[in-house]
Amino acid sequence: MKLDQVDIKILQVLETNSDISLSEIGKKVGIFSASAISRRIENMKKEGIIERYGVELNLEKLGINFVTITFVKARYGPGYIQKIADHLLKIKNVISVYFLLGDIDFVLITKSRSKEDYEAILNKLTEIVEIERTDSRTVLKVLKENDYSSLSELIVSNLKSH
Amino acid sequence: MKLDQVDIKILQVLETNSDISLSEIGKKVGIFSASAISRRIENMKKEGIIERYGVELNLEKLGINFVTITFVKARYGPGYIQKIADHLLKIKNVISVYFLLGDIDFVLITKSRSKEDYEAILNKLTEIVEIERTDSRTVLKVLKENDYSSLSELIVSNLKSH
Amino acid sequence: MKLDQVDIKILQVLETNSDISLSEIGKKVGIFSASAISRRIENMKKEGIIERYGVELNLEKLGINFVTITFVKARYGPGYIQKIADHLLKIKNVISVYFLLGDIDFVLITKSRSKEDYEAILNKLTEIVEIERTDSRTVLKVLKENDYSSLSELIVSNLKSH
Amino acid sequence: MKLDQVDIKILQVLETNSDISLSEIGKKVGIFSASAISRRIENMKKEGIIERYGVELNLEKLGINFVTITFVKARYGPGYIQKIADHLLKIKNVISVYFLLGDIDFVLITKSRSKEDYEAILNKLTEIVEIERTDSRTVLKVLKENDYSSLSELIVSNLKSH
Amino acid sequence: MKLDQVDIKILQVLETNSDISLSEIGKKVGIFSASAISRRIENMKKEGIIERYGVELNLEKLGINFVTITFVKARYGPGYIQKIADHLLKIKNVISVYFLLGDIDFVLITKSRSKEDYEAILNKLTEIVEIERTDSRTVLKVLKENDYSSLSELIVSNLKSH
Amino acid sequence: MKLDQVDIKILQVLETNSDISLSEIGKKVGIFSASAISRRIENMKKEGIIERYGVELNLEKLGINFVTITFVKARYGPGYIQKIADHLLKIKNVISVYFLLGDIDFVLITKSRSKEDYEAILNKLTEIVEIERTDSRTVLKVLKENDYSSLSELIVSNLKSH
Amino acid sequence: MKLDQVDIKILQVLETNSDISLSEIGKKVGIFSASAISRRIENMKKEGIIERYGVELNLEKLGINFVTITFVKARYGPGYIQKIADHLLKIKNVISVYFLLGDIDFVLITKSRSKEDYEAILNKLTEIVEIERTDSRTVLKVLKENDYSSLSELIVSNLKSH
Amino acid sequence: MKLDQVDIKILQVLETNSDISLSEIGKKVGIFSASAISRRIENMKKEGIIERYGVELNLEKLGINFVTITFVKARYGPGYIQKIADHLLKIKNVISVYFLLGDIDFVLITKSRSKEDYEAILNKLTEIVEIERTDSRTVLKVLKENDYSSLSELIVSNLKSH
Repeated sequence: MKLDQVDIKILQVLETNSDISLSEIGKKVGIFSASAISRRIENMKKEGIIERYGVELNLEKLGINFVTITFVKARYGPGYIQKIADHLLKIKNVISVYFLLGDIDFVLITKSRSKEDYEAILNKLTEIVEIERTDSRTVLKVLKENDYSSLSELIVSNLKSH
Repeated sequence: MKLDQVDIKILQVLETNSDISLSEIGKKVGIFSASAISRRIENMKKEGIIERYGVELNLEKLGINFVTITFVKARYGPGYIQKIADHLLKIKNVISVYFLLGDIDFVLITKSRSKEDYEAILNKLTEIVEIERTDSRTVLKVLKENDYSSLSELIVSNLKSH
Repeated sequence: MKLDQVDIKILQVLETNSDISLSEIGKKVGIFSASAISRRIENMKKEGIIERYGVELNLEKLGINFVTITFVKARYGPGYIQKIADHLLKIKNVISVYFLLGDIDFVLITKSRSKEDYEAILNKLTEIVEIERTDSRTVLKVLKENDYSSLSELIVSNLKSH
Repeated sequence: MKLDQVDIKILQVLETNSDISLSEIGKKVGIFSASAISRRIENMKKEGIIERYGVELNLEKLGINFVTITFVKARYGPGYIQKIADHLLKIKNVISVYFLLGDIDFVLITKSRSKEDYEAILNKLTEIVEIERTDSRTVLKVLKENDYSSLSELIVSNLKSH
Repeated sequence: MKLDQVDIKILQVLETNSDISLSEIGKKVGIFSASAISRRIENMKKEGIIERYGVELNLEKLGINFVTITFVKARYGPGYIQKIADHLLKIKNVISVYFLLGDIDFVLITKSRSKEDYEAILNKLTEIVEIERTDSRTVLKVLKENDYSSLSELIVSNLKSH
Repeated sequence: MKLDQVDIKILQVLETNSDISLSEIGKKVGIFSASAISRRIENMKKEGIIERYGVELNLEKLGINFVTITFVKARYGPGYIQKIADHLLKIKNVISVYFLLGDIDFVLITKSRSKEDYEAILNKLTEIVEIERTDSRTVLKVLKENDYSSLSELIVSNLKSH
Repeated sequence: MKLDQVDIKILQVLETNSDISLSEIGKKVGIFSASAISRRIENMKKEGIIERYGVELNLEKLGINFVTITFVKARYGPGYIQKIADHLLKIKNVISVYFLLGDIDFVLITKSRSKEDYEAILNKLTEIVEIERTDSRTVLKVLKENDYSSLSELIVSNLKSH
Repeated sequence: MKLDQVDIKILQVLETNSDISLSEIGKKVGIFSASAISRRIENMKKEGIIERYGVELNLEKLGINFVTITFVKARYGPGYIQKIADHLLKIKNVISVYFLLGDIDFVLITKSRSKEDYEAILNKLTEIVEIERTDSRTVLKVLKENDYSSLSELIVSNLKSH
């Protein structure tokens, strides 16, 4: 499926505010048929481009303000990547897991209420036998996180340059 | 503002799917007054707990599948943190920026279409005089990213334990 | 228990010199009832704020002048933190033990008479199976150590800012 | 000045509890002349072995529970050690400063109320031009700190072995 | 241009031995028209797939047996990559130069007659102002180098899987 | 066997273009007897100086443009070098393998079509029990690779200086 | 035994040239009794200050010019220091072995004829089970080695300052 | 000059004890002409194989027992190697200086009386502008140092294998 300028504009609108009626979207993107907007959105859902409508929460206001980035070195062995992934996916405070090239095998982002809570999470990590070493860094400030707004510009530039 | 069990349930519903009517939310959380649901949501918005309704996009389907994690060491000087932050916030492919304790000062997550694109981004980073060194790692797989679903459980456990 | 300005002043006096009569403390803090001073001190003891009256010794004059800081990496396993802690707490030359986040798990401060003595301590450390690696640094000079005097100012500023 | 067994016993008593009368000390060390005890203590003060009578405070109870260990690399230059030391001695949250051999020049122990407070301290450190790099680690637990009790045994063994 | 099985076979023959007549190639790949072989080779040259016919020399037999791998860290600045590249391309003993992601910016492979010769090369490297640090490793054995034979299989598997 | 100026010139010609007749070589090196040229080439082959006539392929044009440099740390044990070498020699995407002094035991150069393909190669590496750790770096640009042209100058200077 | 100025002068003479008669030494140190010189030398031998008369060889002239410095990390276990030491003392090319504090446990200085020879030595090192990792660096130049001449000045300054 | 078995035997004798008459050497090597021994020794001196007759001192007995190994990273610039070398050669406590490949540029061995003395030496090192970083390690034990006895065997094996 090829996106056109209108699709991109719709995505930009939805990213900023998805709690909006089809006709309002139409006004913002300059197309006055709600059913045309709806069809485009349904297409993008069907293609898997729009994965989910959600809400962004302010975790700090909910008392979850001890953020860490953890570098994990794995102990090699058959299927070690999958085994570590399986364990990590179950730890609910670990909100992001990246598997990467280099001397660090996984980078985790973890959010919890306090360093005492993080100690419990660290204990879970060190009990995973496929994990050889962890190295956790305390985040002082989250300056930007999963910022989609700039990505929509990116998609545009992407479309233009092809 | 103190959240109660019903507020939490509402957040859980909205995280999974925010494109849903008030009465549908009501059914899922066991409260049959749409206006009560509406009032609770408005309160959580006013308090800044719900920051935004958005959509989650599948960037890979949009051709944006070269993901890197970049470790940045700063060159110390008056206001260096703010200066670096200002520069980074303008680079649209950099979707996350963390300022942290330790021998790495910033961790960036960057998404682009290819390593050629990333080279252009890297050039922008190395032109920032407050940046002394960068160390970029290629992400082979994003196993989990900004996973809110598990965080809602977290908020519940958080509420229970206090 | 909330401390007030008088409590803080008493703590400042005691930190500098705890071998002093109640009436002398009274003069310094501007309260002329020895029993009021006594009651405040007893309260702070009961609350666990004052843990102990002690003396500060000059270890160098006692021939204990080989100081090292040792970085310890643990070998992960069930209960490894507690096991290492138990061992370390028994080694009498190890006067401080910190458990911390990052690629170093424990930092120890050790004082002994000579590098020959330290070699014996190092042998004890390397016999602890939960310790994977140690990295010991020779301290050339202790510029400041457990300096409480500045902390009392800290408590004051702490009280003021809340 | 040579310490004998009685002096050592007196030091052991004072370390544990220095808020005690001369006759009580006498009972514990088996010497029933308060003036003899007094003379011995005065000698140890005069020799600089006893530097100060103080109190040990529980900082956690005072809200000061964000502890970090910071590794500092200096930028070499004439008198850099003294310059850095001068700056560090003025930062009141830095309670210990060690100058050491190896690729880390200084180790600092810092205590503050929160990571937000620590960020302000870190800013002060990075403004010192003689400091090239810092690397701060969050302490999860202080297992032992400046533990004098075991050192008094040490002095005894020290005396015995000479 | 799409390669077919015959093209690949021709490449395999040429890699192993390019000093061979068209009819001999034909026999090996099962096509008995020299002009067909010639046409295919000319096409692959025109498309830039075959870049050059060359010879592989045994440098050890020519006394060039001090091989090093050098890791280079750059000093960031405008156009630093190109500047370093320009310098490196002129040093004739540096036979390979890779620019890469991570905390090492360039990897060089260098061949010379002796460590004395390498010292002269190292001097040239350290005179390049855009180079901050080098780290040279002595190669004990070259186990495999630019091994094309296995790559031709690779191209085959590549074609098959698409 | 001692090379003379004519031999070197012949090598220079062949490196640049080995698909050339003996008489053409003769013209370039100033010797007009094809049989003399032939005899010199045959000698250099017999001595093992010329190992092979080949072709240089442009792998990027064949879709093989994900290049990595991998640092390998071995797990010591009897014959570990040979065991690792045996495994590496079988992995067809690994086109170069160097065994070297220092804290990195092997450096590999690998070429594949994509990071997904490289993940499969990495899996093969981590299944080799004699490999303790790998550290893979993504190559952004190959600036120069196995550049023989400058080496022929090198041989000349080498001959001159002896 | 206390050395005096004359003893030191004798040591200085002997370090520079020990193949000299007692009367010649006497002239240089300003004491004209050969028996007094002899008595002083015998005393310094008896006290173990002079350990041995030897010769300094130029190893390069004997073809032994591949010098390496090897950093060794031990695998901890009962008596690991002694076990490693025992092995190292038997490897004849290892001419110096230092056991030290820090993340490197042993530093070795090794001299051999070539990197091929060093590979055999490295094999011996990696067969020692108590050795976890080695890191060998090639020495480009020995600028100074075991330089006693400056040490004799040192002894003098040492004597003066006490 | 080619050494033969007798020359080697003479070197072995002299290394162990050079304070010995020609006829005694003769007996040990099985040649009974003192003049033949003398001629051989003179030849080896003339060829520069024997550089010097000296004595080996026990520095510990002279109170010089604080030994360090210092890793030096240079700041690159024209002639930096020579400049650093010139400075280091003047520091009398630095008894050995090696210039080497890798991320450490120089390794120094230093001997002094105490860590206080070493601090003064470290100050001299950090005042050398061409030195960027030092990393000093305290030697706990010198297990072997400049051990020539095993090297004489080495020369023998060297001769045999050629």
